Formats: sequence, C-alpha cells, structure tokens
Amino acid sequence: MRAAVAGASGYAGGELLRLLLGHPELEIGALTAASSAGSALGAHQPHLPALAGRVIGDTTPEALAGHDVVFLALPHGHSAAVAAALGGDTLVVDCGADHRLADPAAWQEFYGGEHAGTWPYGLPELPGQRELLKSARRIAVPGCYPTSVLLALAPAFAAGLAEPDVVVVAASGTSGAGRSLKPNLLGSEVMGSVSAYGVGGVHRHTPEMEQGLTAVAGTPVRVSFTPTLAPMSRGILATCSAPATPGLTRSAVREAYESALATEPFVRLLPEGAWPATAMTYGANTAALQVTLDERAGRLVAVIAIDNLTKGTAGGAIQSANLALGLPEELGLPTTGVAP
Amino acid sequence: MRAAVAGASGYAGGELLRLLLGHPELEIGALTAASSAGSALGAHQPHLPALAGRVIGDTTPEALAGHDVVFLALPHGHSAAVAAALGGDTLVVDCGADHRLADPAAWQEFYGGEHAGTWPYGLPELPGQRELLKSARRIAVPGCYPTSVLLALAPAFAAGLAEPDVVVVAASGTSGAGRSLKPNLLGSEVMGSVSAYGVGGVHRHTPEMEQGLTAVAGTPVRVSFTPTLAPMSRGILATCSAPATPGLTRSAVREAYESALATEPFVRLLPEGAWPATAMTYGANTAALQVTLDERAGRLVAVIAIDNLTKGTAGGAIQSANLALGLPEELGLPTTGVAP
Amino acid sequence: MRAAVAGASGYAGGELLRLLLGHPELEIGALTAASSAGSALGAHQPHLPALAGRVIGDTTPEALAGHDVVFLALPHGHSAAVAAALGGDTLVVDCGADHRLADPAAWQEFYGGEHAGTWPYGLPELPGQRELLKSARRIAVPGCYPTSVLLALAPAFAAGLAEPDVVVVAASGTSGAGRSLKPNLLGSEVMGSVSAYGVGGVHRHTPEMEQGLTAVAGTPVRVSFTPTLAPMSRGILATCSAPATPGLTRSAVREAYESALATEPFVRLLPEGAWPATAMTYGANTAALQVTLDERAGRLVAVIAIDNLTKGTAGGAIQSANLALGLPEELGLPTTGVAP
Amino acid sequence: MRAAVAGASGYAGGELLRLLLGHPELEIGALTAASSAGSALGAHQPHLPALAGRVIGDTTPEALAGHDVVFLALPHGHSAAVAAALGGDTLVVDCGADHRLADPAAWQEFYGGEHAGTWPYGLPELPGQRELLKSARRIAVPGCYPTSVLLALAPAFAAGLAEPDVVVVAASGTSGAGRSLKPNLLGSEVMGSVSAYGVGGVHRHTPEMEQGLTAVAGTPVRVSFTPTLAPMSRGILATCSAPATPGLTRSAVREAYESALATEPFVRLLPEGAWPATAMTYGANTAALQVTLDERAGRLVAVIAIDNLTKGTAGGAIQSANLALGLPEELGLPTTGVAP
Repeated sequence: MRAAVAGASGYAGGELLRLLLGHPELEIGALTAASSAGSALGAHQPHLPALAGRVIGDTTPEALAGHDVVFLALPHGHSAAVAAALGGDTLVVDCGADHRLADPAAWQEFYGGEHAGTWPYGLPELPGQRELLKSARRIAVPGCYPTSVLLALAPAFAAGLAEPDVVVVAASGTSGAGRSLKPNLLGSEVMGSVSAYGVGGVHRHTPEMEQGLTAVAGTPVRVSFTPTLAPMSRGILATCSAPATPGLTRSAVREAYESALATEPFVRLLPEGAWPATAMTYGANTAALQVTLDERAGRLVAVIAIDNLTKGTAGGAIQSANLALGLPEELGLPTTGVAP
Repeated sequence: MRAAVAGASGYAGGELLRLLLGHPELEIGALTAASSAGSALGAHQPHLPALAGRVIGDTTPEALAGHDVVFLALPHGHSAAVAAALGGDTLVVDCGADHRLADPAAWQEFYGGEHAGTWPYGLPELPGQRELLKSARRIAVPGCYPTSVLLALAPAFAAGLAEPDVVVVAASGTSGAGRSLKPNLLGSEVMGSVSAYGVGGVHRHTPEMEQGLTAVAGTPVRVSFTPTLAPMSRGILATCSAPATPGLTRSAVREAYESALATEPFVRLLPEGAWPATAMTYGANTAALQVTLDERAGRLVAVIAIDNLTKGTAGGAIQSANLALGLPEELGLPTTGVAP
Repeated sequence: MRAAVAGASGYAGGELLRLLLGHPELEIGALTAASSAGSALGAHQPHLPALAGRVIGDTTPEALAGHDVVFLALPHGHSAAVAAALGGDTLVVDCGADHRLADPAAWQEFYGGEHAGTWPYGLPELPGQRELLKSARRIAVPGCYPTSVLLALAPAFAAGLAEPDVVVVAASGTSGAGRSLKPNLLGSEVMGSVSAYGVGGVHRHTPEMEQGLTAVAGTPVRVSFTPTLAPMSRGILATCSAPATPGLTRSAVREAYESALATEPFVRLLPEGAWPATAMTYGANTAALQVTLDERAGRLVAVIAIDNLTKGTAGGAIQSANLALGLPEELGLPTTGVAP
Repeated sequence: MRAAVAGASGYAGGELLRLLLGHPELEIGALTAASSAGSALGAHQPHLPALAGRVIGDTTPEALAGHDVVFLALPHGHSAAVAAALGGDTLVVDCGADHRLADPAAWQEFYGGEHAGTWPYGLPELPGQRELLKSARRIAVPGCYPTSVLLALAPAFAAGLAEPDVVVVAASGTSGAGRSLKPNLLGSEVMGSVSAYGVGGVHRHTPEMEQGLTAVAGTPVRVSFTPTLAPMSRGILATCSAPATPGLTRSAVREAYESALATEPFVRLLPEGAWPATAMTYGANTAALQVTLDERAGRLVAVIAIDNLTKGTAGGAIQSANLALGLPEELGLPTTGVAP
C-alpha cells in the first residue's frame, strides 16, 4: 500500500516520514508541500537520509491521487478541499484541526471561520473508537495536548472516579509549534526558560479536551487548561486533576486504571511509585502514565508523558490508519524510546 | 556589617555569595561548609572569581561568631543548634525548612522527627510581614515553590477573589534540588525531558503553601501541588488556580492585583496579554506575574515566574535580612535579569 | 541467535538493548550488571517498556554462557576475564577500551596497569577491516571519539590528501561519560554551558586515534585532541583538520571522499554546502560528514556528526557483530534519526 | 554622562542596557531601533523591568544627539552614516563590524561593498591598545569570536611561544546570531544538537583574528577557524592551538601567561588543572582561560570561555567606553557570573 504525505517539509510531516520508513506495509509515495515545493527533502529533513534526494511536489489533487492513504500535515483550513478532490475511497488522515470538533459554535469561537465538518476522531483508546475507525475513510487526528489529556483521564471518567471539573497544566516541547519563524520560538529565547501561553481558557485545544471527556463521562466536563513551553524539542508532560468522587481510595484508582489499560498497546501505566518523564517516550508511540489520589486535597491526579510528534501526531495518525486499512494496529509503530 | 555564609559550597550558598558581592553594606565574612571544608571556594563556585582563593572553614559556632548576620544554607535539621550557639543578638537567616512550619504535626508528617520551632517567615510581601521582619533576629526563608505560590495567590485570597481550593503545577529548574549526586539529576537524564515527582500531596512544600494562604484567606485553604523538573538550571514557573468567587470579572481581578502590588519592589504584574517566562527573572530578585479569569472553567488563574535561587532562596533571604538589619529592603538586590 | 548484554543498566547497555529490540535475528538473552543486579530493568531503562519486567542478573560466566554473542558494556579491566571464561566459540564484543590499543606502552601511559591484549578493531569502514571482522570471535568496539575521527579522516589519509599532523576538537553529549555520579555531570552544571576537559594530549582516546590514522596513512600520524562537553545528552561533533598536501584542490578532496564513501552504508557525505549537526544522526547508526579545503589556511577540514551511543558505541558494536555472525552488516541498524 | 543605545530591541542592545542599568556614571538616554520603533522596550526586553515602559525611537541623528556616548548595535553598513552625523566630539562605540578591519581587500572579500574605514579597536588587553583607547572618539568593538581568540593567544604570540599557524574551533551560544528569524536558530533545531557552519576559512571573523594576532606576533599569522553552534543561549568556548616553538616547556607557558595577565582585570588564568566552562562567565565581563603544552603533538593549546554578549560584545564595548570617557576601566562591569 502506498502513502502520500502532504506537508512533508514540516515537523509533523518529517515524523510521518520517519515512521513510514519503518512501516512494513506502507510504501512512501508522493511528498508534497507548499513553499518548499521543488526542493529536495534532504534540505528540510536531514535526519532522513533514505529520502534525501526526493523532490517535494506541490500539494495538488493530482499529486496525491493514486495512494491508499494520504496523510495531511497542513495548516488549518486546507484539508477539506484536498479530501473532497481525492474521492471517498482514499483514506485521508488529517493531522490538522479542521475536522476534530463536532460543535460548529466551538469551532467558530476558537478557530473562526466556517466549520468544515466532523470526521471520525483518531484516538483508538477512547471507548468504542477502535471499532469505529476500522471502517473510516476520513480520520481527524487529535491535537497533541488532547491526546495526552484524554489518555490520562478517560479511565477516570469512564469509571466515575472524578467530578467533571478538570484542571490541566501541560508542558510541551517547542516542536509542537511547528517550524514557525516566531521570535519566542528561537533557541535563544527557549533555552533555559519555561513560559506560559494561551492561559485562561483560550487555547484551541480546550474545547477538544472537553468534547472528548464529556463523551466518556456522559456529562459535561469543563477543563481549565494552561499550556507551557519547555526547553526541549519534543515531548508533552500533562498534569491532569479533578475532584475525586466521595469515598474514592487509592487502590480503587489503581484498579480502575489497570483494568482500563490492560490491553492497550501504547498506553503504559507505570509501576506504583514511578512518575512519567517525557524522555521515557522520546520517539515512541507510547504514553507513560501514572495516577494517584491526593487525599489531602481530595483530587485524583494523573500525569502523562507522550512524544507530541509521535503518539501526539504522526504515530497516532498511523495507528488509526492501520486500523482503517485493515492492518494490525501496532504495525510499524515503535514502543521503544530513545534515551538518554 | 559582616555576613557569614554556612553552606558556601552549595548552590544556595553560591547564590548568597554572588548577591553579597554586590551588596553595598554587607561584607562577606566567614565561609563554611561540611564536606568541602578546607578547600578553596573557587573549586566549587568558579563563577565567583573575587572569592576564588578563599578557603572554606568548618561550620562551627566559633567560625560563625562575630558577624552581624549569618546565612544558613544547610541541610534540614542543622539550623537550630547553630542558631542556639550564636546568641540572640546575631541575625540568623535560615534558608532551610526547619523553622517554616508552625504546626508540629505538619512538620512530623512531611519531614519527620522533632519540630525545631517556628521563626518569623521571610516573605515581606505577605500582609503584615514586612513590619514583623524589621525586628526579627531569626528568619525562616520560605521554600522556593511556596515563595512563588504565595506571591501569585496572596492578592487573590486577600481580596476574596477565590475559593480555598487551590491547584498548583510548577516547573522547576534542577538547581532547586541542590548539588545532589542523584541519577535523575544527571544532565543526560534531565536534558530534553520534563518529569513529575512528589505527586499526590506528598511534597514537603505543600503544608507551607497551605499555611501561608490560610493566613491570608482567614479560612483553611487546601492545595493540590504537583512539582515537575524542567531542563533548565534555574527558574520556577508556577501555574496556580482556584475556583473564582461568584460574579468575579476579569477587570476586578486585574484591579485587585494592581492595587495589591502597586508598591511591591520585587513583584511585577506584567502588562495585560503578556505571560511570564522564567527567563524574565534569571538572576534577578523579581517575580513576573500575570493573572486572569478563565470564564469558561470558572477559575482564577495566576502564573508566576521566579528564579528559584534568587527570589526563591538567596535573594529572598537578603531581602528579609535587609529589613531586619534596618537597611533599605531593596539594597543590593538586582531587579534586572540576564537574558537571553 | 541469542545475545547477552553485560552492563545492561548503563547508557551503553541501554542503547544495545534498544537496538537489539529492533534486530530481526538477535534475540535478547541474559541481562547482567554489577550494582544493579537483582533489580528490574525498567527501573534503569524506562524507555524500554518491552523489557521493563526483566530482572538483571549478576555478570558471571554462567549467566553469559549459551549465547551466540555477548556484548560487554563494562568498566575498563573486566572484559578479559569474562571473555576467557566464555570460550573461543562465543562472539564477544567489548564496548570497553581494554582491547583497542596494540601498543602496551600506550596502554600503560593512558590507562595504567597491564595490557589485556589486542582484539580485532570493530570499525568496518577502515581499509581491510570489514573482511577481518567476518571471522572474528573477539571484537574491540572503538571509542566514541575515535569512531568519529577515523571516519572523518581515513579517506583523506588513504588518498594522501593531508600531512600527518592532525588537530581535533570535538563536542560530546554527556551520555559519553556514562551514568556516573560526578558533580560536573549534573544537569545544573551542564545545561547552558560548554566546557573543556582532558586538554593537552591526555585524553585516553588520543593514542587510539593515532593508531588508526597511522595504519591508514602508512606513516606516523600525531593528533592534538581536545574534547569538550556540550549541553546535550547524545551526539559528537568532531572538527578534524590537517595541513593539506601541496597542490590539493577542493574538487580533488570532494572526489576522494565521494569515491571512498560511495558504498558505505552508514557514512553519509553531505551535499556540498551542507554541514553536519548532531541532530541529523540522533538515534541512528549513521555518520554525517562534510569536508572542504581551507585554502586560506592550507588545511583540509572535515567535520563529522555521530550519535555517540549508536554509531559511537552500541550501533557500531552490532554492526561488527553482524559481520562476525554472518549476517548482513546493516541488519537491525537504523539509518533514520529522530529529529527535531 | 548620558548614553544612547541604537539597536535597543536586539540581543546586543539588551545586554548594553542591562549593563548600563548597573553603571554608576552612565545614565541611559535615547533608545532607538528600526522595525521596533514605536513599541515599548518591555515587549522586547522583558528582563529589564526598570525600562519596560520606555518607548523605542527611530534611529536618527536627532534622537542620538546630545549624548556623551552612543552605542551602536546595528546591522552592518549603518554605523558610518550615523557617526558622521553625530560629530567628532561624541564618543561612538560600534558593536558592528564596519570599522574593525584595516585591510579594504579583506573587507571586500568577507563582507563585500565599500570599506567604511578603520576605527580604534576596542580590545584594551592587546598590547598598547589601552592607551590608544583613552583618546578615542570612535571605537570598533571586536567580534565575539575574535575577542575570545585574541585574549587566548595574544600572550603566546607576544612571548614568541608559538608558530603563526593557528587552528581555532569555537562553540557559540545562539544569541551570537542575534534575534534573527532563521529556521536553523529555532529552539527545536538547536536543542540537543551541535552543528558546524562557516567552515573552511569563510567566516567573517577569520581576517579579524588574523589581523589582531599578526599585529601581536609581528609576523603574518594565519588562522583556520571553525565555528560551531551549541545548544545554549550565551557563551563561547574557543579551543585555540598552534605549533609550539622548539624547546618550549609547560612551565614557560604558564609563566608567560601569568606574567601577561597579572594585572588584567577581566582575563582570569584558571588554576592549573582547571579548564574553562562558559558557565563560569555567564553574564560577566570576564574571560576564563587555561593554557597548556601538548608535548605529544607539539602544540600550545589555549582554551577560553567568555559570554559572547558581555565580554564578547556589550561589556567589551562599555569597557572601552570607560577608557575613552576617562572613567575607571572596570566601572559598572560585573566580574561575577550567574551560575549554576
């Protein structure tokens, strides 16, 4: 089977290609981009020598036609048109935000402009989602922060362990912002510094977290979300908490999470006493998770680490694509990180 | 006036010396330590060439006698005996935890062993504390995390803006752990990784935060605190939130903080729309603070950045010492950070 | 075929295991160590969830017996005894220094103590070495710095492009020092700082570089080597130069390197104008190399990047083991790096 | 006395302002810039709260008139016109390259365009330079790399310890490239990676190093210079070597350096056995230097650390300005670094 990657010169595109190079059933077809079209991939992704000489094409329907799966790593607003031109038989996996939100009003509030419609949400670990993805021809890959938060808290809300009043503070590596030439993303600004941004309920991933948790909880969940930028290239560490339901015990929390995650290939509940570090998941499609009950404060606290580019974007995309293509879900996806 | 520093070879001791070298009224007297006694200071603090040849002495009452102020940067459990030997006229400023907690039960629970008693708490920005410190001969310097959290939330609780149910997630640079030879503090482990530790209400700074906020609020405040380790040497970024009191508006929050901080020399409320980064405070005795109301989630959210070694330890210690010595509070304390 | 790893809890051991997990023909057998024997591997290598529950054994001949290949990632001085106990049929691949140097006097000068003898040198890219390794039962894996320098300059000396008077300055990530609890390796010391060490011809890798280059050049080569420590976990960037032979041109340099490296699977000569960055090789068994002629200064200058733990240690070890085991040289070795 | 800073929103301008805030005799006057004119300084230099509300003006002769000293931190090509408009009585200190090179051909080769003429070179540590600067009204501040190399090797060439065939490999923090929005300066690219650039005698600082060393040696010195980019914001570590003159001994090297540097306020020869780290000089106007003789390779090797923004740019500028203004050379310049 052949896979095309649109947006091949960016960070998400590069990660898709890195993983596809190790995928036994997906052959890399067209590589396209916008401003970098016409240049060699090696100029943008020098860590991928196997593809160094491949020339990037323009992102056109013609270039992307004839593939079994097309991965889109484009800026917001471009995927609907591309998908429409490709026809319904081609699997289209969108790493962008266009088709994640079901509520047009939330789209309007957080992104602006017209809502492009909703596609099946590419997080197989959510209840019932794995089956749904097997027949999907369109997949909306979750945002990197929502991936981390939903994996961390879905077991709690599915088991009724927490009140629907969530506080999330997450640290992300700079690749989450893409290869954007913004002053605050310069190495000189980032190194040696942790900074906050998008505070106060304004980050675009907030309604996506609420949508996912609400579906699991069966009752509206609200999320106070604060993202921070940390001096590292990759990784998200999300600290997620919510008021514990009355009478909750630590052992009940542990049991619920163990039960929920027992067969998940990519979500690892750490041994008791160990807490996640993003280095555990560097370059891997895994999440490292730990949960406890803060009896003093009466809160369930879950901390999760993922690689924002792997499980948080490109690995998650391929995981869902595997399901939709009838392949084993784990195919070609590393569970081994690169450390130290 | 002469100042002695006990624990001169550690990170807190080094920062005390760095600041004292620029202090116009405090002359550096004895430098003492435990295992590094007998060696030259330059072997431990090569960034302080002016003191490179000074030989470190043993931490004994004799060595510390005859100074106007003695700064203690010692492991927990040592300060009471040292202070007792120095007599009541000498100002003793303890950067350790021994005398911060008023509640012996909290001490017992979080530190273990016998409570050494309570000293005046060295955070002049707390209501009434500035006056109290002017006559103190013993000062307990706050922990680095509590410094950040109390500065961030005291204005909110003093003005009744928030419910007493606080969630704090903070990222700290590695110097907060001191010069400890632990595997998880190795550069290879730390770089490129953010990790959580002390989750679930077990970090020792938790009761100290609760103690301080409770005093300000006049009602028991509970804190869910999660510390994380970030790949940087210095700095704390603390994200602090609590449910907003009914009817609260963003402008009311802004006004309360502007009013509370108008005359504070070391706490800077950033312009609206700007959010703190630890780089703003690198090497400075300042806190950079921003606050907002998350109307969606109904929470007041304050984010603060400090340098854990400066305002969070050594600078805070000198600030309080200035007051107790009858000197201008700001003397010798930089408000200018080193960036980028 | 089964592979044992002695020293499984260290950084080199961890990297061996990471690569072996992806090797299609080598099954992971015994994992042994010294002080960490008895603990679970997951406590030391949390990035390897597939092996998290494996218990580390003691490094004894019994534990290591019965494998097709035994990888040794031990401190200096231990490999000879282990190898002797294993018998001559078992392939023993030593990542340590014990058997690299042919000259007992050089061993005595730089390491001290008795010379343990010389084993075939595990750098297949050296002239004639690939064939020699195919029949080896003992392999001495090169040091990480010598790997970089020999790959960078062997083509020049093989083609007679340079005078035998080499200057090397190399920056290494901290993992090159292993998981040693030394103050200068603490994150607080390393981050934000580049430092020099082992300056003036005293670093132990110096005679190894000279030995390798001398063999290629056919005349004694001397090397002035300065290692530096850079704030990153992995990677070596080595800048290597030597006086150009009279009449040398840039195109002649380019042609010689292109010719020498045309069929090398793991050494990549970058396109003209591109210069190496360690990020190009992160986690990969590749070297990224560029070379030019500094006409102004009359020197040939080659710059090379490798991952010190992969091509510089564990990947190089497996590459040579593949040859000795009759497997394809490239088997199980990634050429794709993890970036950004 | 009043000082103006042109280019106040960049990294060099920010460092000038940081230091001027602590200078007892220089009051900060006009702050000007190009594209950021009209905005508040706090938006660009949030670490300087004392100046946060100052509005940046346009860089015009009118804005810069009426100051005792004008510091120029402008892109190349702008300083001659600005200086001409200011008149000969105003001290103009140019942090740019326009007036460093004496040889118009070298300017043409490395920078292109017309040579703007030569100004007194602002490195007081060079033989005879201190006196010359006392009467200067125009000063060309050295480049950051040349500052490090000249300080490291001038004592050797002044004492005839080395042959004029220098090899320099230097690692720089990213602030050396300024606040330029280039992909290779993004945090995601820089962190975890060391990279080479400008290899092969093409970096613009090469002729400046040769010019300075040639003047000291009294014979043409050629320099092979390779700059590298390291994952840190600040700092240069330069490893500089040259063939030792016949018969040279380690003690002769030590004595020559001790003698040459005995009275230098800002260049510190480290104790024997200690080697420089950039962290020793973070934020300080000091250089940390060590030198040895590599007897094996027959080379004198000097390693030096400076802060590229302080001693390498803004601190060096103020040091020279102090001399030209008749102030004590050391006034307002920190010798204490910020570490860890």
